[in-house]
Amino acid sequence: MAAEAARAEGPPLPGPPGGRPRQICSRPYFVVLMVFAHLYVLNVLGLLLFVHLSAGDGPGPGPPPPSEPGPRGDALPRREGIKVGHKQKVELVPNKVHFMKTLSLKPLLFEIPDFLTEEECKLIIHLAQLKGLQKSQILPTEDYEEAMEMIEISQMDIFNLLDHNQDGQLQLREVLTHTRLGNGRWMTPQSIREMYTAVKADPDGNGVLSLEEFKQLNIRDFHKYMGSQKVKMSDLVRNSQHTWLYQGEGAHQVMRSIQQRVMHLTRLPPEIVEHSEPLQVVRYDQGGHYHAHMDSGPVFQETACSHTKLITNESVPFETSCRYATVLFYLNNVTGGGETIFPIADNRTYEEMSLIQNDVDLRDTRKNCDKGNLRVKPQQGTAVFWYNYLSDGEGWVGDLDEYSLHGGCLVTQGTKWIANNWINVDPNKRRQLQFQQEMARYAKEGDEAQNEWTVDKSYRNVHVEL
Amino acid sequence: MAAEAARAEGPPLPGPPGGRPRQICSRPYFVVLMVFAHLYVLNVLGLLLFVHLSAGDGPGPGPPPPSEPGPRGDALPRREGIKVGHKQKVELVPNKVHFMKTLSLKPLLFEIPDFLTEEECKLIIHLAQLKGLQKSQILPTEDYEEAMEMIEISQMDIFNLLDHNQDGQLQLREVLTHTRLGNGRWMTPQSIREMYTAVKADPDGNGVLSLEEFKQLNIRDFHKYMGSQKVKMSDLVRNSQHTWLYQGEGAHQVMRSIQQRVMHLTRLPPEIVEHSEPLQVVRYDQGGHYHAHMDSGPVFQETACSHTKLITNESVPFETSCRYATVLFYLNNVTGGGETIFPIADNRTYEEMSLIQNDVDLRDTRKNCDKGNLRVKPQQGTAVFWYNYLSDGEGWVGDLDEYSLHGGCLVTQGTKWIANNWINVDPNKRRQLQFQQEMARYAKEGDEAQNEWTVDKSYRNVHVEL
Repeated sequence: MAAEAARAEGPPLPGPPGGRPRQICSRPYFVVLMVFAHLYVLNVLGLLLFVHLSAGDGPGPGPPPPSEPGPRGDALPRREGIKVGHKQKVELVPNKVHFMKTLSLKPLLFEIPDFLTEEECKLIIHLAQLKGLQKSQILPTEDYEEAMEMIEISQMDIFNLLDHNQDGQLQLREVLTHTRLGNGRWMTPQSIREMYTAVKADPDGNGVLSLEEFKQLNIRDFHKYMGSQKVKMSDLVRNSQHTWLYQGEGAHQVMRSIQQRVMHLTRLPPEIVEHSEPLQVVRYDQGGHYHAHMDSGPVFQETACSHTKLITNESVPFETSCRYATVLFYLNNVTGGGETIFPIADNRTYEEMSLIQNDVDLRDTRKNCDKGNLRVKPQQGTAVFWYNYLSDGEGWVGDLDEYSLHGGCLVTQGTKWIANNWINVDPNKRRQLQFQQEMARYAKEGDEAQNEWTVDKSYRNVHVEL
Repeated sequence: MAAEAARAEGPPLPGPPGGRPRQICSRPYFVVLMVFAHLYVLNVLGLLLFVHLSAGDGPGPGPPPPSEPGPRGDALPRREGIKVGHKQKVELVPNKVHFMKTLSLKPLLFEIPDFLTEEECKLIIHLAQLKGLQKSQILPTEDYEEAMEMIEISQMDIFNLLDHNQDGQLQLREVLTHTRLGNGRWMTPQSIREMYTAVKADPDGNGVLSLEEFKQLNIRDFHKYMGSQKVKMSDLVRNSQHTWLYQGEGAHQVMRSIQQRVMHLTRLPPEIVEHSEPLQVVRYDQGGHYHAHMDSGPVFQETACSHTKLITNESVPFETSCRYATVLFYLNNVTGGGETIFPIADNRTYEEMSLIQNDVDLRDTRKNCDKGNLRVKPQQGTAVFWYNYLSDGEGWVGDLDEYSLHGGCLVTQGTKWIANNWINVDPNKRRQLQFQQEMARYAKEGDEAQNEWTVDKSYRNVHVEL
């Protein structure tokens, strides 16, 4: 009976007893069949497409090989250093091979020669000059003295704050580590000693302040002395001029193209690179420098990132720039000096206090660049790239990498031009993703309403025509 | 008309002019419809399954997060260190959480407390004692002198080989670095000086051999002196006893279970871990030591691995053990000494010659364990795990990690028991894969023919009953 029923050529079977004609024979059933077939094809195609997209651009389905990890969900791919001196191929532009050499593992730091062409370097300098540069740091004003007197903090608290090793004495390096005391002025063992003499803080002249000596010191005298000192640009932490160049939609083709290369170099997702700070172009004249610093700060539970702060609308006590990675370009060959120094790169351990030993401050890029661990000589077109933060081991941003401390050595002859691309990522993943969603929404609304200002809302204050 | 056609309740439409009853109304069409529906469901399920499997065990579709990379094709997953002191959860056994702490990045080295229970440690010691241990290194025999005289190499060649810095003089450390000269004896600055005196090699007694002094030296005198010296166990590179315990099919449940944990710890594929060396159990009695060494050698184009050599059947001039990773277990608490020393862990640079400075040889674990960078104290049940090779940046084994230099410090009191699991991987990927295929084939044939010896063919010489 079943065999009979399956025969294709037979006449329509009789309907069920006492019923209407069997609905299997109706035209509507044909329609259902066709809809089913279409659904089938569409679903299979959809799933195949999904599998393909999940697998990235690999040769076949399956996750990408580790050497070329595509964006995996929300995770941030991170380049591997392997070991100092290791060279790996990177594909930045079509039909050209670049090599990326590992310079250090702590911080994870690479050098890429010929990242920019000579013409591109010249163009960036030209654009920056057209736009105009401003001093990176200004001389202390008269307000300083007043401002300092407003701060309410007891003398004993200051002592405890400075006494890092809690031995009841202030060594020179303990005072030096807190350069904020200097209001942008760079403090040296020499300048501290001079200050001690001026305010009669260290009668025995041993460079160490005992608790007794500190108690007798009038903090007001200290501020008065600081306010009275004539300060030159070379006495500041940073002696350079800079400007910002926009790289987003509508920017110069070269600026756009550099952003693309930075994406390929860092392998960070476009939505992160595109919503990072504009390109900073910096000029150091002869005598210019930038004492060693970190490009971003430590992140605590309560710390906000400058780039996500506006969006997430949280009020927080601390803020930092959350520059996950730095890509620094050398735009010219410097006649003398101007190296980038990483004083403690690949040091076995990090100890803030050991940066200053026997009156030698390794952070001082006017005096001690020859004593640092790693010095990169400017070479036109070369890029150096490093991570300011470690991985958290879960594919996101972890702790600040203290070994990323770096500075610009004294330019002894000629001018030095560099540019910085910072990639901003919020170590708080939720905030970063919220920021990206908002930026995508603004961009979309902007497209619709032709509101150009929304494209780079978070940096609109620095977005002038270039 | 289309609306009418789509109505479900209507009577069968008239057939086409002059035709048989429309086949859309036939029972066979119903069958086709059902087959289609089944195919659809099966295909969708199949594709979903494929997507799921491609994505590993992640919470949803998509590649796995980087913190838990599944095996990706042929690539070797590698644990991340993040930074010294970083702790990460590892899942080794069900319902128990272990923590893995990063001890150094160069080499990439971790510590996992409570990897083994006290009972497991005791059982391993018991099994090793049942099997019996043998001296790890034997005292030099009479054959030494003869063997050395057989080697045909000119005195000038020896000089050039030893003169590392090519300054035309042999410093003590240049002679010390080539410990092979000592035939398993550990050479110290003191023993070299004694030898110089005995063979009158260094008349001016400054510890440096000039080319002139070396030329006048009769190499035969040197060998005679070496052959005549009474050597104690404590004068050797390695002063311990050891045996091997099988972990494959049919082994003690604890031995099997430890191998499983090693797989979870290292995330290396079962086919690699299962075909690695058996567990080595080592006993150091009071006075025992193992001067600093690397567990595996450098790999050149011409170098073969001990484990793949038999299979690939290539004749090669060099051979090394190709121990990609070491997992070392502490089986007891040592009363005095017996730490594992990594003398140059996380050093900024590696320079073979700087291991010996001012007559201090950092590799000497009887004298200089206090001067090394990282010292791990034995703690019963704790495992330490490190990579002897770097990554090649393409998901496979790269260069030897010279920072993996390590040794066992002098046991000053009591006995020290440890065990080593070495994971063997051929840096030549083709050879490793060929080896795995062959091992799989042997295992299959073995199953069929009940030939127990085929299970672990490459280590059958060390596979006794345990």
